[in-house]
Amino acid sequence: MPELPRDSVGLVTPQTAHFDAPLELACGRTLPSYELVYETYGELNAERSNAVLICHALSGHHHAAGYHSPDDRKPGWWDAHIGPGKSIDTERFFVVSLNNLGGCHGSTGPLSHNPATGRQWGPDFPMMTVTDWVHSQARLADRLGIQRFAAVIGGSLGGMQVLQWSLNYPERVANAAVIAATPKLSAQNIAFNEVARQAIRSDPDFHDGRYAEHDTLPRRGLKLARMVGHITYLSEDAMGSKFGRDLRSDDFNFGYDVEFQVESYLRYQGDTFSNRFDANTYLLMTKALDYFDPAAPHGGDLAAALAPASCPFLVVSFSTDWRFPPSRSRELVDALIRAGKAVSFANIDSPHGHDAFLLPEPRYQAVFAGFMKRVARDLNLEAH
Amino acid sequence: MPELPRDSVGLVTPQTAHFDAPLELACGRTLPSYELVYETYGELNAERSNAVLICHALSGHHHAAGYHSPDDRKPGWWDAHIGPGKSIDTERFFVVSLNNLGGCHGSTGPLSHNPATGRQWGPDFPMMTVTDWVHSQARLADRLGIQRFAAVIGGSLGGMQVLQWSLNYPERVANAAVIAATPKLSAQNIAFNEVARQAIRSDPDFHDGRYAEHDTLPRRGLKLARMVGHITYLSEDAMGSKFGRDLRSDDFNFGYDVEFQVESYLRYQGDTFSNRFDANTYLLMTKALDYFDPAAPHGGDLAAALAPASCPFLVVSFSTDWRFPPSRSRELVDALIRAGKAVSFANIDSPHGHDAFLLPEPRYQAVFAGFMKRVARDLNLEAH
Repeated sequence: MPELPRDSVGLVTPQTAHFDAPLELACGRTLPSYELVYETYGELNAERSNAVLICHALSGHHHAAGYHSPDDRKPGWWDAHIGPGKSIDTERFFVVSLNNLGGCHGSTGPLSHNPATGRQWGPDFPMMTVTDWVHSQARLADRLGIQRFAAVIGGSLGGMQVLQWSLNYPERVANAAVIAATPKLSAQNIAFNEVARQAIRSDPDFHDGRYAEHDTLPRRGLKLARMVGHITYLSEDAMGSKFGRDLRSDDFNFGYDVEFQVESYLRYQGDTFSNRFDANTYLLMTKALDYFDPAAPHGGDLAAALAPASCPFLVVSFSTDWRFPPSRSRELVDALIRAGKAVSFANIDSPHGHDAFLLPEPRYQAVFAGFMKRVARDLNLEAH
Repeated sequence: MPELPRDSVGLVTPQTAHFDAPLELACGRTLPSYELVYETYGELNAERSNAVLICHALSGHHHAAGYHSPDDRKPGWWDAHIGPGKSIDTERFFVVSLNNLGGCHGSTGPLSHNPATGRQWGPDFPMMTVTDWVHSQARLADRLGIQRFAAVIGGSLGGMQVLQWSLNYPERVANAAVIAATPKLSAQNIAFNEVARQAIRSDPDFHDGRYAEHDTLPRRGLKLARMVGHITYLSEDAMGSKFGRDLRSDDFNFGYDVEFQVESYLRYQGDTFSNRFDANTYLLMTKALDYFDPAAPHGGDLAAALAPASCPFLVVSFSTDWRFPPSRSRELVDALIRAGKAVSFANIDSPHGHDAFLLPEPRYQAVFAGFMKRVARDLNLEAH
């Protein structure tokens, strides 16, 4: 049996929480009952004061750290930051990470059975918003006996959930870390999402979302959606230094097979994704991104929207992130300051674009770990 | 009959030149014979010294200025810069504008009949490069009795042809204007092109490029390709100020019909394009972009590659162009200076992104007109 790294949370097993109370959604519909799949790392202390909630991004899920099997080639998606001695130190904190509603990794979503019809939800699954996720996450916290999180943390779409938590449940969030996020999508962000959606929806194998009933998958569309997305996750510089204009063979073949290495990389990323992710989930996740705009009900005044928040914030951006650039984080920081909130802001120099939030970057780790040490100190959390 | 604007070249009629001499191509194949469709504006002077060649970009064609009919809603694609009294002043210059080989507007391309088979070329049309276009354009110049162009001018992919002209036919280019171009595509540029190609090629209606034989068109793929392209032509700011997060109706409909105005705009752009452009042409145009890299045979030394050029250059970039940003033009300018060439460089402040090269921007017009006045003065060209 291969040995797991010493700074890993080790082998973890997902758990499932079933909820029978209906959940009213922003779209006006109601989810009669649902399940949430989640993992936990570390131990909840007797005071139940050391819980940290991890919110995932567009294609993320509950498996944020550790391994499901000793044979796993890769650990969870945020393993660089969650584990004994890591930024989110599992010797101090009890970490909760769930798959969001509408997801395709075990929580109730388009792949689940609709109790009203006995068939798969598919495209009939209700549209989700960041607010809906936050309410469902609060119910999971209730179930786990967590009245107040020591910190709610997330990157990208996960960061938007953190922001929404601080507004909907200010008394339940002791600290908030909003990483590589934005207070709202730009027209260009929405445009890229729309290309992804059109790619999926125009795939003849999509069948209006009922591909399962047709025993097929809209792989072409999902592949294209992921290829476009992937370009926006990487910086131009990172793509340049990773691939440049390198060719797969010695010279051009003057055809449409792979010529440049970057083509090979993108096709591979698209292919693997299209075999592991559900298209209906991808669609609704991009919509949740588009809808997010907490300032909208306040006439666009973000500072006014942030009034309910009561916790200190950490906001982190990455210098080469062009999906949600540093300027978007600064918008949030400026509004937090105008609203009189406590906020620390770090713009991390990184060549890795938006994806940097997933990676171990020394200054990022230092900022993140420093923030979490302060959280632990303020709450008098001891290491086990 | 509606009156045409006074600064228009007026009604124009495309002409066709037929070439029987085979054209050897960079891909190793030979085009046995071909036609080039072109338009001219202004009059060739007795010395044949006032000709200007316009090279078009990815989705461009020969109709650069004027109107084909008094009822045309729009003039040619570069009408803002070509006409009496405009930057390229047709009272001084004789302007030649052609549709490139491989195009879909009348010049020999995938829509033409392959004399060897009697069928449409379709996907069997040979892959084109910027160098191939330049050689074919030189033959058109021969046909028109133009030994030397007063200026060769182009934007984007057109600018690459200008650069290649200055290297392949230095004695035939008195001046060169390279606008919103780059000496080579970046990995990210290639990645976007690859998404466009995969969108087209994975459309079930593409039929390996033989869609005409199947009496269909790969409209879905072409639409997606254009939508992605369009995002890269506009600046984030321009998209933001044009559409922002404006909704088409009063509130979200929580479905996949158009919600944001930017979605409506992109879908419309994609739909109209997919009905008017040939998919095989789009594919080979993106490939010509990818292949262009005059420094490659010189170990990446652009200054060394530029050694043959003998004309003065105008290089223009636009501040918010993120497809071929100002830094890419500066690369070219720096190499021209290192190679000892005369070069004027203007980075124009514009909110319009890459598309700015098509638009009338006062400083752009002033720079462009000033350059052309100098060209006319140097060559002693009189206004008619």
